[in-house]
Amino acid sequence: MTTDYSPLEVFNENENLDEIHLGRHVLAEFFECDPNTLNNIDKVEKYMMEAALECGATIVQKCFHMFSPYGVSGVVIISESHLAIHTWPELGYAAVDLFTCGSKCDPKVAYEFLKDKFHSKNASFTELKRGIITRNSMKVVEKPFEVMEQIAN
Amino acid sequence: MTTDYSPLEVFNENENLDEIHLGRHVLAEFFECDPNTLNNIDKVEKYMMEAALECGATIVQKCFHMFSPYGVSGVVIISESHLAIHTWPELGYAAVDLFTCGSKCDPKVAYEFLKDKFHSKNASFTELKRGIITRNSMKVVEKPFEVMEQIAN
Repeated sequence: MTTDYSPLEVFNENENLDEIHLGRHVLAEFFECDPNTLNNIDKVEKYMMEAALECGATIVQKCFHMFSPYGVSGVVIISESHLAIHTWPELGYAAVDLFTCGSKCDPKVAYEFLKDKFHSKNASFTELKRGIITRNSMKVVEKPFEVMEQIAN
Repeated sequence: MTTDYSPLEVFNENENLDEIHLGRHVLAEFFECDPNTLNNIDKVEKYMMEAALECGATIVQKCFHMFSPYGVSGVVIISESHLAIHTWPELGYAAVDLFTCGSKCDPKVAYEFLKDKFHSKNASFTELKRGIITRNSMKVVEKPFEVMEQIAN
């Protein structure tokens, strides 16, 4: 993975910063979605690709798969990490991961975009910091992830 | 997505069960890994594919990408969801997701396998439940994810 900044530069430019994190990982849950959309591989792929572009990411590769009798799984690898989706049309439910690195992308934009496209009446958004680097150590802190923000709307 | 059981069947067979979850999502952090392994796309791909098979999954598709100057990103889509990796060889760090559905796969097996292959001296494992279904509602509960287990070793 590459980030568009070096930890050393960021700390030098921001004297009050004690830690940074390499990635933002959003675990999104979309409830009460339109089942026909969730069961349409072309639509799911199209919306995931558009979500990547909307949030400022650069698409590298993609792979999507249609399950029998229902459901789609797919991943878009972006220069800034990945977006992944698994859908259960029969339950109107989709589990989505939006993992981005660097300062250019905002996974929240992808979340709002997909919530709208899937016609989700209810959704939740949990953002985690991954790969926390402290100024003192200048290396990745060896502890489990940290929750940054959690909302349900 | 497909699961190898229907929620209704599981509840009927287990009278004391009040809720089940569609997926187990492990957020793994591998610290102090061998940088040469993390920067070798062939090895990273090989170990991720083997990890999928080791934990009982069926591989559907894969895509891996090598970044310049360092780092590998990749995803293995399995019938039971996906495994994803992003590596920062310069920091000896890899962020890995092991998302599995159904009763056949154990993401912990993939975690232990990769920890060994990456020669990680320290790692953390956080398991979340995704898509919780309750007996009363028989649909996905509309609340953010729930942490199931968290260990550092």
